[in-house]
Amino acid sequence: MPDRRTITGFSNPLVKFLRSLRDKKHRRRERRFLAEGLRLLTDARESGRLPEMLVMSTDRDPHPLLDALEEEVAAQGGDIVEMDKAVLAKVTGKDNPQAVAGVFAEFDTGLAALDRDAAPIWLVAQAMRDPGNLGTMLRTGDAVGAGGLILLDECADPFSVEAVRASMGAIFTQRLAQARWDEFVPWLRSGKAQLVAASLRDSQPYRDAAYASPCFLMVGNESQGLPQAYEEECDLRVTIPMLGRADSLNAAVAAAVLAYEALARLDSS
Amino acid sequence: MPDRRTITGFSNPLVKFLRSLRDKKHRRRERRFLAEGLRLLTDARESGRLPEMLVMSTDRDPHPLLDALEEEVAAQGGDIVEMDKAVLAKVTGKDNPQAVAGVFAEFDTGLAALDRDAAPIWLVAQAMRDPGNLGTMLRTGDAVGAGGLILLDECADPFSVEAVRASMGAIFTQRLAQARWDEFVPWLRSGKAQLVAASLRDSQPYRDAAYASPCFLMVGNESQGLPQAYEEECDLRVTIPMLGRADSLNAAVAAAVLAYEALARLDSS
Repeated sequence: MPDRRTITGFSNPLVKFLRSLRDKKHRRRERRFLAEGLRLLTDARESGRLPEMLVMSTDRDPHPLLDALEEEVAAQGGDIVEMDKAVLAKVTGKDNPQAVAGVFAEFDTGLAALDRDAAPIWLVAQAMRDPGNLGTMLRTGDAVGAGGLILLDECADPFSVEAVRASMGAIFTQRLAQARWDEFVPWLRSGKAQLVAASLRDSQPYRDAAYASPCFLMVGNESQGLPQAYEEECDLRVTIPMLGRADSLNAAVAAAVLAYEALARLDSS
Repeated sequence: MPDRRTITGFSNPLVKFLRSLRDKKHRRRERRFLAEGLRLLTDARESGRLPEMLVMSTDRDPHPLLDALEEEVAAQGGDIVEMDKAVLAKVTGKDNPQAVAGVFAEFDTGLAALDRDAAPIWLVAQAMRDPGNLGTMLRTGDAVGAGGLILLDECADPFSVEAVRASMGAIFTQRLAQARWDEFVPWLRSGKAQLVAASLRDSQPYRDAAYASPCFLMVGNESQGLPQAYEEECDLRVTIPMLGRADSLNAAVAAAVLAYEALARLDSS
């Protein structure tokens, strides 16, 4: 059995460190993030990502997947830490915390690391503010067989607890890139790519559009949408019908409706 | 100009009443809910719903829509209240509150009040726990021209601040019903209806299914999905492809992908 440290006090420096990972500024400085729950950690492990530190509640139920995880983390020299449920609740900020959490090193999120030909669909979010929407887009990307999610300009932090949670493990299976628009366009145009905007301007019905692989589906900021110049750079502008009073869908919903349409069209083409 | 009360203290009983509306227990007892922001209140007004009480920040910017709203609330005998931004922040629980909020009476959410023939699509959520998902489903329902949202069994509160906010005004334009399964089925079968489940069991691809109006699209609890007996009652069980590691979409995303498919098929049939 691997060595374990047991922590009981709320004021332990490690507890303070773990709590600080819920704060974007600290997370950025440490380049580490937290993921909670055996299911998420198992998704990570099966995707080749092991936590540097495994944190477990002392009152956890035994589970063979947890044993396997613990063995592998220890084998690669990672830390194994136990703490009271009350202390773990303070770390994760949830009254009823999951029995296990992991600390992961952030991934390389440069565009250069993406292989655009690895998947027919890529999702692109511009200036998206809601971490839950980013996590939901990662989850949808996994479902449609997308390659990953590209974040343009100032987005919410995809390594925040809320985004990681909403991704339901897709933070580990989807590629993630972060770039400014003026870096993204030259990269995009350096190879084969179709850039598609969800748009209301000068656009065609999303069900009639000729999607082509690799297809980059871009949605904009929750309240502003995409800047006009960004839409003008797109190869296709497509509109999802809005039959009611509202003029837009939730951004993650719009991305999903487009992504499933593109998936069906690309499959049948 | 209508009479206005101005409230400056945090301990004023009205401030306590308004704050209590953020709590489900108090909201249920009072049968009142809060909606924030001029846009939402204008959506409400244009849908024929006026707040019983209009609460405005003393440092708000003037706006003709706000003037119109104030006149109408006063004309129907409603309260007009002004308060400091700091007090309003305490009421809404946001550091940077919207300049205006309204207190609304809850609507009748009985099934009997629904006219199933009023729309080709209805959304149904079973035991959904996330108020943001409920609000997003209302917003999607507005967009696809659905009649409304039917909540089955123990769902999150659709009148919570989070759900109202995520609905982006659709709480006022979509019909809302709450019922137990054993009330819903007899009501559904008392008239023309097609009940469709997003399901993995014994189901057909969602793009090949023969949707028929009025079409009731049902999604289940975020972690459990739908109970098997509920799926067996359905006229159609349809599957959205899942190409990645995850076995489900976000519930509000699944509802939207289905709803847009049903919309397109019903339109072209």
